[in-house]
Amino acid sequence: MSTRRDARRELMSAAIGLSLDAGFDQTTVDEIARTAGVARRTFFRHFRSKEDAIFPNHEECLGRVTQFLESASPLRPPLLVVADAAAIVLDMYVEDPETAVKRYELTRRVPALREWEIAATSRYQRAFVRYMDGRREEADRETFRLRHEVAAAAIVAAHNHVLRTWLRTGAHGDVRAQFNAAMTEVTTALRPWIDGRATVDESSSEVVVVLTVKGTPLWKVAEEIEAATRH
Amino acid sequence: MSTRRDARRELMSAAIGLSLDAGFDQTTVDEIARTAGVARRTFFRHFRSKEDAIFPNHEECLGRVTQFLESASPLRPPLLVVADAAAIVLDMYVEDPETAVKRYELTRRVPALREWEIAATSRYQRAFVRYMDGRREEADRETFRLRHEVAAAAIVAAHNHVLRTWLRTGAHGDVRAQFNAAMTEVTTALRPWIDGRATVDESSSEVVVVLTVKGTPLWKVAEEIEAATRH
Repeated sequence: MSTRRDARRELMSAAIGLSLDAGFDQTTVDEIARTAGVARRTFFRHFRSKEDAIFPNHEECLGRVTQFLESASPLRPPLLVVADAAAIVLDMYVEDPETAVKRYELTRRVPALREWEIAATSRYQRAFVRYMDGRREEADRETFRLRHEVAAAAIVAAHNHVLRTWLRTGAHGDVRAQFNAAMTEVTTALRPWIDGRATVDESSSEVVVVLTVKGTPLWKVAEEIEAATRH
Repeated sequence: MSTRRDARRELMSAAIGLSLDAGFDQTTVDEIARTAGVARRTFFRHFRSKEDAIFPNHEECLGRVTQFLESASPLRPPLLVVADAAAIVLDMYVEDPETAVKRYELTRRVPALREWEIAATSRYQRAFVRYMDGRREEADRETFRLRHEVAAAAIVAAHNHVLRTWLRTGAHGDVRAQFNAAMTEVTTALRPWIDGRATVDESSSEVVVVLTVKGTPLWKVAEEIEAATRH
């Protein structure tokens, strides 16, 4: 297991290093494999393409993000759950800062790679929208769709901003702290709109009063509120 | 001029139609040119690649968007200018609804085309960020960068949401009205944060009082306020 991981990392490092030196188009899979000290077929056990070898394992990360979203507490505001999920992507990028800085330099030079990456990250954005949709009742989904699309785009944009700023300045400083500060700013600004009810019907008399006793567990109170406020 | 435009449209329509029928990868440039009734070299006078022939002319549209941003009134809130600029992109997409619906169907079927399009639209997003940055004083740009990134992503996400919803439902209804409603909702929700000052220094005594006389043109008042509030 550890060897597989190491081979993967070596191949990625070779792919990025060679592409920076000789150009991405000029670098062949054979050269990458040779530099990493593995066979050509080992390359294709890890990656489908040369582009694939430049970037972190988005496939695996998307799986982890999806799992995280699926198991998130239904009591936590959806936008904060999405911000936490974006931290998983950040952690993957910053795990190996040296490679990350080189990759950033390479994607700045090769527009095709930058576009490949933009497309890859759009899959996280779609997962975020799906998650927020799922946190609404069926009847509310269409009304809130615009907000969910905007919220997911906002979280991805904030993530990218923090990551790129950190990489551009040589990966110094506490990127996780910068990420948390940015997410606090974004979620504080957006939550009143994102969380809000679709329309406030002021003539509605359907007011819900919740009575409970001290010591009732929070999940139980939430369950009762949910039952009472359901359409 | 008109003939060139017609050939372009015919080629695009043929590229989309053939790809829907036979598959994008199975469709050749020769077939597209033949179906459009033009020579192969005419195809390459209009498009660099097969992908290029599927999508509207983003190159030209980005030029128009940039020009619009550059000539926008410095008195109009930046976020509203960006929303207006996004309307230019929308207009291009909805100009020919029949082709737009088919293109949407095709991009849903072919992930590579969807990713190509995501990458293309990311260039508008960058132009929006650059514009909003330019509307700030140099000293404020870094502080506001996160907001500009988020705002640009939000406008693009709202644009895409309206466009896709309209295309998914067969291009019925007034898409421009739907776009305006969505933009009003998004810009109203975001403006307090996007427009706001970077940090409110409550201990600061640098209060600016503007005195003016009735009949002073607005641009003149704005100029004086700008001079007075400059760092």
